[in-house]
Amino acid sequence: MKLWQTIDGLEDDLKQVERYLEELAQAPEEWASLSAVLSSSAVQRGKRLRPALVLLTGRLGPDYPACRDRLCRAAAMVELAHAASLIHDDIVDDSPLRRGRPTVQSRFGKDMAVYAGDFLLSRLFLFLMEQDMGRCGLLLARCMSDMCCGEIRQYQAQFNTEATEEAYFESLLGKTASLFAVSCELGALESGCGPKDMESLREFGRNLGVLFQLRDDLLDFTSSQQAEGKPVHSDFKQGLYTLPVLHGFQDPDVGPLLKEAARQVQRDGSDALCARMEELVARSGGIAYAVSVMEQYERQARCLLETLPPNPILKRMDSMIHKLVPGACRKPV
Amino acid sequence: MKLWQTIDGLEDDLKQVERYLEELAQAPEEWASLSAVLSSSAVQRGKRLRPALVLLTGRLGPDYPACRDRLCRAAAMVELAHAASLIHDDIVDDSPLRRGRPTVQSRFGKDMAVYAGDFLLSRLFLFLMEQDMGRCGLLLARCMSDMCCGEIRQYQAQFNTEATEEAYFESLLGKTASLFAVSCELGALESGCGPKDMESLREFGRNLGVLFQLRDDLLDFTSSQQAEGKPVHSDFKQGLYTLPVLHGFQDPDVGPLLKEAARQVQRDGSDALCARMEELVARSGGIAYAVSVMEQYERQARCLLETLPPNPILKRMDSMIHKLVPGACRKPV
Repeated sequence: MKLWQTIDGLEDDLKQVERYLEELAQAPEEWASLSAVLSSSAVQRGKRLRPALVLLTGRLGPDYPACRDRLCRAAAMVELAHAASLIHDDIVDDSPLRRGRPTVQSRFGKDMAVYAGDFLLSRLFLFLMEQDMGRCGLLLARCMSDMCCGEIRQYQAQFNTEATEEAYFESLLGKTASLFAVSCELGALESGCGPKDMESLREFGRNLGVLFQLRDDLLDFTSSQQAEGKPVHSDFKQGLYTLPVLHGFQDPDVGPLLKEAARQVQRDGSDALCARMEELVARSGGIAYAVSVMEQYERQARCLLETLPPNPILKRMDSMIHKLVPGACRKPV
Repeated sequence: MKLWQTIDGLEDDLKQVERYLEELAQAPEEWASLSAVLSSSAVQRGKRLRPALVLLTGRLGPDYPACRDRLCRAAAMVELAHAASLIHDDIVDDSPLRRGRPTVQSRFGKDMAVYAGDFLLSRLFLFLMEQDMGRCGLLLARCMSDMCCGEIRQYQAQFNTEATEEAYFESLLGKTASLFAVSCELGALESGCGPKDMESLREFGRNLGVLFQLRDDLLDFTSSQQAEGKPVHSDFKQGLYTLPVLHGFQDPDVGPLLKEAARQVQRDGSDALCARMEELVARSGGIAYAVSVMEQYERQARCLLETLPPNPILKRMDSMIHKLVPGACRKPV
């Protein structure tokens, strides 16, 4: 049973979010190819994790349920920002698969992917202006700027075997955690939570986002292509050195070998060379290290929930953490 | 002497626009490559035609000069929207040159161009939210949605020898004329013009935008690469069939030959084949036809200015029309 099926009315709210999304991402009828792009993209096939966060946190403030429709609109905007960024990121990643399906740019070409992302951004921007959701817009705008900067940071660090953990986290906070954070913040804002709770929820979202990305990065090592719906070892091949690899680079024994292997993968991304990298990372204890870092974020996220006034919703939010913790790392969320 | 040097204080306002642009398009210092991208992009090298329209029309309403700083901010936003769209359009066009310089994607690759455009969009979005310029934002958001749709329309019509003039104008109105229209509308809005004048100015901008694009399309035929700062006949090679070509396609004698030539250019975009297309277009009277259409838009733009209360600024706006009329088609604006 899905998380939201256990909460009264949450599924209805998510359906309302879907209706907004459909309205927002609708291409004019005569544009068959854009419609095809959009219906094959993340906007149609997401797990709706971020909208769920908006809706859940939106039940914590005193203005719920009066704010219910505003929450649905905010949730749709968050998902749209996510979908647009995925389309553009896939251009850069040159990834053939996303969620088990061909990416927009692999099916329709980079050009159409540029436009499809821009189309979603322009729809989001227009929707926000029409709704007159000023403060929500400001938070979302800051987040989108952070997301873009995080992506650029990651892009600039590609194939850099001297990249630091600090730079990795800086990129991660922008590209992934900021949207989780703002999702929680928007729920808190619209439902009228006080500043302290809003800050706690924002921090909770940020921690959850970090956990999500660390888990996603780890899946590139530990899962099969079939389970994850995207190619494994794609991070190695793209020179995206995630936490376990960065840890391996620092290891006095394994580090030089791993860097050499990474450079070989850069020249020739064969499966054999990737397997060599994976073996070296494991030897350095990189995966165990990443798991221990995840446990820290897990604890922090739980602590933040404990600072909030008691509410049955918090148990559901706790179960979102649970789904992302290391023990769950072999199963897709 | 440039247009704005003849108007009291306009150059100062444009300098203020530049300051806003610089602030907005500033990448963090450590991002050398993004900074390089941005400083080589349109945001640094535009003719500032659209900001000039905001500033000129912004002198027509009763709230000038109190609105002066808001005008500069609106002008910077318009130019930023323009610069972001150019960066993404160049990806799709695969154009090597823009304003005589290598395009972002030709120097830094498509990936960086995707991010640079997104970065500017996110900065624009954030600036707008921070400024709390709600109505201006709504108009700009609508325009950006129209621009994106116009670009997609053009993209979808590529290499379609059955494309209609109507579809061509629909695309043109979105991709180019809408930003000219909104530039004039924002000036009118911020300076407190009444709804009738605002509508006239918006229409003036739209007509000027059409004129601008028709002229730009014509330059692809009639100018040299050196004069225009971008390759000639690039529209032929990209299958962007502009008004003179569409007219030629309709010619009972020349049409079939021109379509055949266009298909040959699609397979092999040699200069000889492009010259053959150009010759056929000329034989059909396509260029003369485009010039006659431009003259219609010129007249309409002038008529719209005549509906406005007398103001010395209108003479300057008239001279903007003059710079775009067919007689000026062999010189860059």
